[in-house]
Amino acid sequence: MIFPRLRNAIAFGGDYNPEQWPESVWQEDVRLMREAGVNLVTVGVFSWARLQPSEKRFEFGWLDRVLDLLAANQIGVCLATATASPPPWLTARYPEVLPVTADGVRLQVGARQNYSPSSRVYRKFASALVTKMARRYARHPALVTWHINNEYACHVPECHGPDSTRAFRAWLKKKYGSLAALNNAWGTAFWSQGYGQWEEIFTPSRAPYHSNPTQCLDFKRFTNDAFLELYDLELAILRRATPDIPVTTNFMGFFKALDYRSWSSRLDYVSWDSYPDPSDESAARRAAAAGHDLMRSLKPDRPFVLMEQAASAVNWRPVNMPKRPGVMRLQSLQAVARGGDGVMFFQWRASRAGAEKYHSGMLQHVAAEDSRVFAEVKALGSELKKLGVVTGSLVRNRVAIAFDWHAWWAVELESKPGRIDYAAWAQQLHAWFYAQNLGVDFVHPSADLSRYELVVAPALYLLNEKDGGNLQSFVERGGTLLATYFSGVVDEMEHAVCGGYPAYLRQALGLWVEEWVPYPEGRSNRFRFGRARADHRCDHWCDLVHLDGAQALAVFTGDYFAGRPAATRHHYGKGAAYYLATRPDAAGLDVLLSQVIKEVRLAPPLRVPAGVEVTVREAADAQFLFLLNHTNEPAKIALGLTRGHDLITGRLLSGTVQLPPCDVQVMRLPLK
Amino acid sequence: MIFPRLRNAIAFGGDYNPEQWPESVWQEDVRLMREAGVNLVTVGVFSWARLQPSEKRFEFGWLDRVLDLLAANQIGVCLATATASPPPWLTARYPEVLPVTADGVRLQVGARQNYSPSSRVYRKFASALVTKMARRYARHPALVTWHINNEYACHVPECHGPDSTRAFRAWLKKKYGSLAALNNAWGTAFWSQGYGQWEEIFTPSRAPYHSNPTQCLDFKRFTNDAFLELYDLELAILRRATPDIPVTTNFMGFFKALDYRSWSSRLDYVSWDSYPDPSDESAARRAAAAGHDLMRSLKPDRPFVLMEQAASAVNWRPVNMPKRPGVMRLQSLQAVARGGDGVMFFQWRASRAGAEKYHSGMLQHVAAEDSRVFAEVKALGSELKKLGVVTGSLVRNRVAIAFDWHAWWAVELESKPGRIDYAAWAQQLHAWFYAQNLGVDFVHPSADLSRYELVVAPALYLLNEKDGGNLQSFVERGGTLLATYFSGVVDEMEHAVCGGYPAYLRQALGLWVEEWVPYPEGRSNRFRFGRARADHRCDHWCDLVHLDGAQALAVFTGDYFAGRPAATRHHYGKGAAYYLATRPDAAGLDVLLSQVIKEVRLAPPLRVPAGVEVTVREAADAQFLFLLNHTNEPAKIALGLTRGHDLITGRLLSGTVQLPPCDVQVMRLPLK
Amino acid sequence: MIFPRLRNAIAFGGDYNPEQWPESVWQEDVRLMREAGVNLVTVGVFSWARLQPSEKRFEFGWLDRVLDLLAANQIGVCLATATASPPPWLTARYPEVLPVTADGVRLQVGARQNYSPSSRVYRKFASALVTKMARRYARHPALVTWHINNEYACHVPECHGPDSTRAFRAWLKKKYGSLAALNNAWGTAFWSQGYGQWEEIFTPSRAPYHSNPTQCLDFKRFTNDAFLELYDLELAILRRATPDIPVTTNFMGFFKALDYRSWSSRLDYVSWDSYPDPSDESAARRAAAAGHDLMRSLKPDRPFVLMEQAASAVNWRPVNMPKRPGVMRLQSLQAVARGGDGVMFFQWRASRAGAEKYHSGMLQHVAAEDSRVFAEVKALGSELKKLGVVTGSLVRNRVAIAFDWHAWWAVELESKPGRIDYAAWAQQLHAWFYAQNLGVDFVHPSADLSRYELVVAPALYLLNEKDGGNLQSFVERGGTLLATYFSGVVDEMEHAVCGGYPAYLRQALGLWVEEWVPYPEGRSNRFRFGRARADHRCDHWCDLVHLDGAQALAVFTGDYFAGRPAATRHHYGKGAAYYLATRPDAAGLDVLLSQVIKEVRLAPPLRVPAGVEVTVREAADAQFLFLLNHTNEPAKIALGLTRGHDLITGRLLSGTVQLPPCDVQVMRLPLK
Repeated sequence: MIFPRLRNAIAFGGDYNPEQWPESVWQEDVRLMREAGVNLVTVGVFSWARLQPSEKRFEFGWLDRVLDLLAANQIGVCLATATASPPPWLTARYPEVLPVTADGVRLQVGARQNYSPSSRVYRKFASALVTKMARRYARHPALVTWHINNEYACHVPECHGPDSTRAFRAWLKKKYGSLAALNNAWGTAFWSQGYGQWEEIFTPSRAPYHSNPTQCLDFKRFTNDAFLELYDLELAILRRATPDIPVTTNFMGFFKALDYRSWSSRLDYVSWDSYPDPSDESAARRAAAAGHDLMRSLKPDRPFVLMEQAASAVNWRPVNMPKRPGVMRLQSLQAVARGGDGVMFFQWRASRAGAEKYHSGMLQHVAAEDSRVFAEVKALGSELKKLGVVTGSLVRNRVAIAFDWHAWWAVELESKPGRIDYAAWAQQLHAWFYAQNLGVDFVHPSADLSRYELVVAPALYLLNEKDGGNLQSFVERGGTLLATYFSGVVDEMEHAVCGGYPAYLRQALGLWVEEWVPYPEGRSNRFRFGRARADHRCDHWCDLVHLDGAQALAVFTGDYFAGRPAATRHHYGKGAAYYLATRPDAAGLDVLLSQVIKEVRLAPPLRVPAGVEVTVREAADAQFLFLLNHTNEPAKIALGLTRGHDLITGRLLSGTVQLPPCDVQVMRLPLK
Repeated sequence: MIFPRLRNAIAFGGDYNPEQWPESVWQEDVRLMREAGVNLVTVGVFSWARLQPSEKRFEFGWLDRVLDLLAANQIGVCLATATASPPPWLTARYPEVLPVTADGVRLQVGARQNYSPSSRVYRKFASALVTKMARRYARHPALVTWHINNEYACHVPECHGPDSTRAFRAWLKKKYGSLAALNNAWGTAFWSQGYGQWEEIFTPSRAPYHSNPTQCLDFKRFTNDAFLELYDLELAILRRATPDIPVTTNFMGFFKALDYRSWSSRLDYVSWDSYPDPSDESAARRAAAAGHDLMRSLKPDRPFVLMEQAASAVNWRPVNMPKRPGVMRLQSLQAVARGGDGVMFFQWRASRAGAEKYHSGMLQHVAAEDSRVFAEVKALGSELKKLGVVTGSLVRNRVAIAFDWHAWWAVELESKPGRIDYAAWAQQLHAWFYAQNLGVDFVHPSADLSRYELVVAPALYLLNEKDGGNLQSFVERGGTLLATYFSGVVDEMEHAVCGGYPAYLRQALGLWVEEWVPYPEGRSNRFRFGRARADHRCDHWCDLVHLDGAQALAVFTGDYFAGRPAATRHHYGKGAAYYLATRPDAAGLDVLLSQVIKEVRLAPPLRVPAGVEVTVREAADAQFLFLLNHTNEPAKIALGLTRGHDLITGRLLSGTVQLPPCDVQVMRLPLK
Repeated sequence: MIFPRLRNAIAFGGDYNPEQWPESVWQEDVRLMREAGVNLVTVGVFSWARLQPSEKRFEFGWLDRVLDLLAANQIGVCLATATASPPPWLTARYPEVLPVTADGVRLQVGARQNYSPSSRVYRKFASALVTKMARRYARHPALVTWHINNEYACHVPECHGPDSTRAFRAWLKKKYGSLAALNNAWGTAFWSQGYGQWEEIFTPSRAPYHSNPTQCLDFKRFTNDAFLELYDLELAILRRATPDIPVTTNFMGFFKALDYRSWSSRLDYVSWDSYPDPSDESAARRAAAAGHDLMRSLKPDRPFVLMEQAASAVNWRPVNMPKRPGVMRLQSLQAVARGGDGVMFFQWRASRAGAEKYHSGMLQHVAAEDSRVFAEVKALGSELKKLGVVTGSLVRNRVAIAFDWHAWWAVELESKPGRIDYAAWAQQLHAWFYAQNLGVDFVHPSADLSRYELVVAPALYLLNEKDGGNLQSFVERGGTLLATYFSGVVDEMEHAVCGGYPAYLRQALGLWVEEWVPYPEGRSNRFRFGRARADHRCDHWCDLVHLDGAQALAVFTGDYFAGRPAATRHHYGKGAAYYLATRPDAAGLDVLLSQVIKEVRLAPPLRVPAGVEVTVREAADAQFLFLLNHTNEPAKIALGLTRGHDLITGRLLSGTVQLPPCDVQVMRLPLK
């Protein structure tokens, strides 16, 4: 149970910013929250300027009143530390707090998150504020959980100001110990970059040409750590004040700037903000599913919380379509189905002013009683109450995708053979499993893989010897590995590993790669499986593979490397290792993955029509089976021996059931 | 009569920059001007560096000689104040004069208009120069009119330098009185932006994310006012010296940076620069017509002057096609037809050097006697002499488009549901009326609307209660209003008006809008009128409308809001209010507008074939009927009972006349 | 012979950067170099930081060991002066060395070439380093040639920092003598730009609008000269130390920033870096051929050296395809066929670290014995040994393309009638001759043209009176000239020449141009030759031509100038002058150029199938005939009376020979 104070209820609510409204509105807010079944609201995210209107003055009275009002109405509070946006007085007086771009532009106040993660002044003032808040509200009855800062690194994924330069040097000194070690790691013998003093080192701001890639990679690592230091700073203060209150910060799914895996041990539970684009509902459900899986995998033994989603449209895309009726409910229950114990929104009441007034709220600009959106919110709140029984149950999968932020950072640096969109490629592979209703976790290549049958490693470009060894051992002990092109090319210093890629996977894969052939947009190659009669198209990339024990499952049939392997399989120890040397078309990918799945004997919980999502959450005494129909047609589902009551409607489900369009059924299946 | 000193002649000439040529060329200039019928030339626009070659030195001798020469040849002078481009010595010595971009880049000398509108130093030196010029030339016989500065805000639509920051704060202080009022207007409770001191406020320079929209809107208002202060500064000096000489500055049509309506009372007559793209002649004539109508509407009781146009090609588009033979003449007479009393060019003689040498001149690089362009210029000059009788006559229309710069600024700020090109949408609606030869004015929503039968309000996003009331009263008293999607969403603070849009038009329209569905490029919806059998396509945007008294004329037939209103009509008081909830295809728009026009019984002055433009100018004792054939085919026109002599050819026109391709006829119709 | 110390061998090798590898690798390097037939390696290009690790400390020991090892193995050294990338200590201590963009961004260390060409500090330190190197290695037995700096102006084509501003002023003072002359040349009477003090002048950094074009043109000239000063500075030092060692710097073909023609007299031989895109092999061979021809033409009486090419893929395009098997060899021998006496690569061993590790090397990341690329390198090395006999022989052509960097700079400045890609248009015309195997030189319009039959002048926009006269004299004396649209428009000050373009070619061409009609992308016109029945398409540009003695060969058939000349011919003196007023389609260009060629009686050395390249190199006693089959099909070639042994295979070639796909034959034909 991640929120002891909510007992066994799914958290339901959203960001609540009462400071944007006259106090007269607050009573209506609370009345409507109760009407909608809201049990948790996030308060204070952007309240710094209100709480501390000038350097010496603090004003907590209004927040006291808000929290008291919520407590009086049995609505819990997810209390944000308000450090996400420093107030104007702070940056006007201490402009060194403002972040600086790679071009040297100091970003001004007027939006949000206008601080450098390495600013000493920012850290001092943020600590002081959090200390005051922690002391004041430690024992407030409304306090359910802490929400540190907000969407760290969003909009400001890096800073090149003087404080950042200084901190980057200190970080490097700590990491490398000596300039000799740094010069070796960065390969500064190339292009006359040898450093003789730490003070000669700068952040990789704008340069005449490609900046040093290891410097860039270290700068991403440093920036991640700089933000993590901010989190740790606040966490320590909160822990001292409230050792028993759970603490989180809201993540953003496939967000490149932060290696969330390095953060997860510091969070009591993972929470994240999911904003799939409503203009493509299929893509949206795939993206949300992948996001939930990635986020859940950060703390696989705890449910996560969907901390933010939009009730309908957002405001920040060039074109912002609203969610069609029913879609918000479906996406909310999808979060629960994939391991979420909370369904929250940004924000409770749509703003009238400011940059996000066209971001939908649970309450819209129209009156609550007139609002389609609020009607759906209320209906959802009432359904979630019936699903409290699933809280605490977990999702357990037998397939993992090896996914590493450092590999992501490295493979997308400039100056590569071709461009790889790392997260998109991982999500493309995830989407195949998602369509089959085969649950997938995302793991670091160094993880304990013993619970998995199959590990998929898409373009694992950066892979050090130890992690490569871990993957090979997994195969040796009986696991199945599927690696793809442009894997195992560099070590953690981003040095190419000589002698044939993918260096530390060669043994398990039984092959080596000599060259890469990246394809320009619009050009493609072809390949064919074993005795198949027809070719498949492939594009983007072809590795030139030499077999060294492996067997070719498919060969290229076009271009200058006709006859060379496109997909291979190799027995290694007790397991098997596949290699996919290109990006195949959908049918070609399906042929390969179907064979892999068949070999490892993986099957979905239920066979269902396309577009129906099936998941299982496991508790000590029962399983929960979720069925979500994402299509606009009713779906017939043969339950076989499975039978039970739908937790939402209460109806008994057995035999072949009909799942209406856009509808959801949840069954509790007691363990025998 | 806007130029008493030109008597009843249409002003004809252009920018004359003799300082670019040796004095030996001046004699030829004047000879050719006379040959071409030139009666007015604009002198001095970019002469500051010549008139004041260093801080302490002024050199007026050459200008004296130019003016004397022109006077001796009966050529009038539109004397520019030369403040549009400060000389290099000024910006080198006082670099704070240079404008600064949102990224902090100080723009260097070497182009033109290199000054910040808020620069105190610039203002001081500009005033001194204008004072000297006003004194020196106040009584010069060549002086016909003053031309203040040039195309204000062109290329430098805003400045973020220290002087601008200081002036912005002062402007805000004056507007809001207190920080509490400012904080409320800007909605600074959102994103922790509350200001505690005026010095904490900056111009909206580059920020991490969307800047505060009301701050951005106020910055546009401030910048408009800063430029207007510059104009007022010069105007006051000129008025003191020459109370009787008319004063103008050249506007630029649909130019976003300046709310020309706030300027118009300060100008003795409106003048503007029209540069439609010759590569699309149909679009060019529509764009020019809309521009003339907008500019004329700024001072509806005075003719305007076309202060600049190109004799053939310009130089500043990526590809600059010349005007085909005849097109320059047609566009010149179009200006007169739509209310212009002057046809001027940039520039008299094409430069040999500098950035605009490929901008065509009345004289080209080839010799005058060899030049197609100059031949057409001469022919035009001779025709215009015959049209002097139309000077002073006015255009009177019964249709108005509500057009507001503040709405334009607001609706195109970032972070909206979708992107709206406000001026394009207004011009698209204007184009329908233009094609029907129904004259249109552009009015502010607060204007006295009593002279109009129909007011069209396209995407009037920002509309305060008072102006909404004005539009509703117009309907109540018997007028017809057509409003479109995304109107009436925010008030003057850019705060969303809650409770159903378009807030202050709901009563008249008899409906309210709950949601917007903006469409990505390439996606569309369909709708159908009443009992029609076929659908129309619509795209870009669909409002989700709830009827509240209005009747649906058309409903959407596709997407998730099938059956909801796409176009409506509502009886209100003595009038009617239409609402168009989407952007229909051309045929769909035609169905709707034809119905509206029929209802208000509007008809063009004559029924003519497509591509023939018809306008009427009204004098005390006569009407002038203009017929312009924009097509490449002869047009047959049935004059009916109308008959009279063509002012150009002198021929009697009656019955059915034939108008040759690209040709023009102008008839004087005495009032009975 | 350009390398006396290599005797009669073709230089073969590449950039060798041993400082990137432990010394233990060096022995293997040298062993594999010998195995591959390497006789020259370029050392030290990016070694500054290694050679001078801090301001006061120099470390030459490692370089001594490298040179000794190479000398001991009979491998010559092309010794780079290491000044191309200043070390971090230098720019950290003297940040004024760093280049500054037009936006004022100071480019940071971390890439390469991070210096302003006008930096006084850079010049001081570079001189000191070169002085030390020259003294130390002047008599080293490995030293074959000096390689000054590297790819001057690459990545930093201009600098706007304070040193550059100061130097620009000094350069202008020297060029113009007086501000009056400068003001006249720059046309500062336009837009109020008159300069009263030299200190008022700045580099053309970012301005509100189009900067002064003559200022921009002078800035390009100045920047070229600033880089050339750097070269001269080093050259003087090297000459003093080693008067007999040849000196070069590596050029980059059609590289806009530097007028290589102004450099060529200072180089003992021309060397250049050729990186055609492997993703389009046809375009690649055309681009490489044009590059070789341009570079060879800079010093027509000496062979050139291909100083850098890639063994396979590069790393800096968005997508970097490898070279297919055989292509590297073909491109290498193409360089020899077109006049090259050296075939060098960047680099010997692909890096493991840094920004260029995915740039292929002669040695790849895989082991030498496993590497397709290294196998091809070795085979090439062995073939080149057999071709030593061609060294010193020269290419002599009878066609020239007039190509001028100043015209290039000028025609591509902003604010033109349309956009012209000068180098692309020149290369498009070159490609026609290349496809016919008609050798072409590139010459300056002021060159001695007496050795040519035909001069082609594509878009020679800037052409002063003297050079125009030179071209006209060429025709008068019997030569044939083909000029194209937008030629002869401005003089060297970029002032339009009045009275009909192309001013200084009008007499020879017998016509004048009144107007230009540039076409937007996707729009086109048509034209027809004499009595032909069908039209050709043309696009991009049409001149409006008046005949003045010339005869129209083709006329436009579409648009408003139907009937006007599209291509003309004029007898002038003993020669003929053609004019092409548009950009025709391929077939139309072929008709015109075929007629021109027929008239001047030019023919290729041999008639061969399409895709076979034929060239001739001439020595005192023999000719060398090169046949290169760029297609994937065998080519049958009728040698006629020509017979001789293939220098590569030793086979006797006579009658009709078969040239395999991707293969090359070289015959020595003794002069009778």
